[in-house]
Amino acid sequence: MEGSKKLHIDHAAQWSSAGLTIRQKEPKNLEAPFDPIDSYLTPTELFYIRSHFPTPTLDQASYQLRIDGAVRRPLTLSYAELRSMPSETRVVTLECAGNSRVFLVPQVPGAQWELGAVSNAEWTGVPLRALLERAGLADNACEIVLEGADRGTPKDEPLPPDPISYAWSVPRAKAIQPEVLIAYQMNGRDLSPDHGFPVRAIVPGHYGMASVKWLTRIQAVCEPFRGYWLTSDYAYWASMDGKPVRHPLGEMKLKSEIARPHVYETLAPNLTYTVSGAAWSGETDVTEIAVSTDGGRTWAEAEFLDPVRRHAWRRWKFDWLTPKETGPYTLLARAKDASGLVQPDKHDKNYGVYVINHSLPIEVFVDD
Amino acid sequence: MEGSKKLHIDHAAQWSSAGLTIRQKEPKNLEAPFDPIDSYLTPTELFYIRSHFPTPTLDQASYQLRIDGAVRRPLTLSYAELRSMPSETRVVTLECAGNSRVFLVPQVPGAQWELGAVSNAEWTGVPLRALLERAGLADNACEIVLEGADRGTPKDEPLPPDPISYAWSVPRAKAIQPEVLIAYQMNGRDLSPDHGFPVRAIVPGHYGMASVKWLTRIQAVCEPFRGYWLTSDYAYWASMDGKPVRHPLGEMKLKSEIARPHVYETLAPNLTYTVSGAAWSGETDVTEIAVSTDGGRTWAEAEFLDPVRRHAWRRWKFDWLTPKETGPYTLLARAKDASGLVQPDKHDKNYGVYVINHSLPIEVFVDD
Repeated sequence: MEGSKKLHIDHAAQWSSAGLTIRQKEPKNLEAPFDPIDSYLTPTELFYIRSHFPTPTLDQASYQLRIDGAVRRPLTLSYAELRSMPSETRVVTLECAGNSRVFLVPQVPGAQWELGAVSNAEWTGVPLRALLERAGLADNACEIVLEGADRGTPKDEPLPPDPISYAWSVPRAKAIQPEVLIAYQMNGRDLSPDHGFPVRAIVPGHYGMASVKWLTRIQAVCEPFRGYWLTSDYAYWASMDGKPVRHPLGEMKLKSEIARPHVYETLAPNLTYTVSGAAWSGETDVTEIAVSTDGGRTWAEAEFLDPVRRHAWRRWKFDWLTPKETGPYTLLARAKDASGLVQPDKHDKNYGVYVINHSLPIEVFVDD
Repeated sequence: MEGSKKLHIDHAAQWSSAGLTIRQKEPKNLEAPFDPIDSYLTPTELFYIRSHFPTPTLDQASYQLRIDGAVRRPLTLSYAELRSMPSETRVVTLECAGNSRVFLVPQVPGAQWELGAVSNAEWTGVPLRALLERAGLADNACEIVLEGADRGTPKDEPLPPDPISYAWSVPRAKAIQPEVLIAYQMNGRDLSPDHGFPVRAIVPGHYGMASVKWLTRIQAVCEPFRGYWLTSDYAYWASMDGKPVRHPLGEMKLKSEIARPHVYETLAPNLTYTVSGAAWSGETDVTEIAVSTDGGRTWAEAEFLDPVRRHAWRRWKFDWLTPKETGPYTLLARAKDASGLVQPDKHDKNYGVYVINHSLPIEVFVDD
């Protein structure tokens, strides 16, 4: 017990001494440390930051949230009014759709995220559903457009001629689920500026681009919203009867990442090393993790550290007796979900520079 | 009469001695000569050619046209079966959506078309409507996808991972209009290989990208088709409630071009020079042409040479008594349509590298 407690303290110290990695200075794109994954919740100051434009300055006193479009009773809420509504708190893992991009060979454009554009936090806010009910969502509304106060000119062609706000659109069927929050707290404290202060969306199970920060408008629309981010940026090639068709990204794909050892780490031979990591998915539950220490030839089952909780990650560990024979070894982790789906072993090119959810090889050296 | 006849012959000689201008060697993108616009119909060998991939080799004997998707009776027609159906012949102007791109300053990417990515021909074929009726178009079909036999990898990101066919989708409301043809003849002769042999679509009033060549499949679909050409290429920024949204191009915009004089031509002072050109539109009729010889300060009305015929251009002329004062002069032509709409005086940036339909300045020198 003493030992276990000490271990826990040591790990927490390691976690908090780690810092964010800059992937882009401005707008802020900062990666969370992934290897010291010692607590179920990522500390707020280590949660990854993904921004499209500079962080806007908003304050609670003048903040307004507009709910309009295809609704019967358009309304505007102050921050105090939002806070006065019944709230819910949920643990939700957010992953950037471009997480692990640095593993793609040859290199592709975009922020070179390694393993840490994913984090897990507890979010508190009002269910979007309650707001849509209050506004009287029209029967024919098919999507809910979430618009932020962050604004600018995006970087890739085709560019709209004028600056735009960041905006994402969530299909109605998802938007009315009870887990989708209009959140104002993260890990029990008001949102920090870089995480969307004072109010952001949390769309559990979808890639991070859907959880719009600095949310100021919720607009119901009756035809698919073909804004910049859904068409030019976060989109992939789906197949319509053999023909590629462009669709916005949505649900997070099943993925497991190895946190320890980290890539190119040197391990002692013939000793027990605890391989650890985390796994998550979109609208399913992760039920099994297999680990390979020989590049995928053989697999062994890992043990979960966290229970099943839809939309939140599950950490796992696997005790590896390192080989006596020194040399390079390739570690892989492979998740399986409740439907029997298995994490893929290579990147699907239809997703372009996104959805890098295959088993990522972690190459280590065993040496004394 | 003798003189008039001789004049006609001279002009025809001039027109046929002109050639196509290469804008891209392979795939073939060849521009029509625009200044010798002496006949209402563009001779087939001078009609502009716009291709996305190398010209496919098809033959009448093995040709098949598949009509499927959201239809009650999918069917496949041979060339002979198509030819045996009742046909119609229509005069239709086709313009490439990128025509006049070379007039954009600063220069933008894409083929540097000048004035001649527009031509006018007589097309013979079976109305698409008749084929859709025969196949039993479903009530909920919203678009008709036209797919060609030309195939390859397009050039701009985001690229689909595998080669694709050229395909365009026409909204149902347009596809069922009587003017839309599945054509096999151009100017009274079988289509030439570069113009879509043996069968192509002709979608009057829409930019050329809709008139799919080497047509082998007609597929009715129940949701908007988001293929490469409609999302990554021929698309523009429309506005949804102030927010830019990406939509496929469609209807041709009102436009007049000056054919003579050509840009930087030197004209004699104090002589009557016949300024000439052509004007066209999408689903309206061109009713008026104004010409300015002083860069837009004053305007005079031009005279039409051709009657109103929906979806076909109208040539026009204006007799200009050139100034006694030598120097540079800027000529402009401005069309008006039956609804009172006037051709714009500058390019709308929402259209990016397409829809260059503003009055194009033709700079000339008066000198003796």
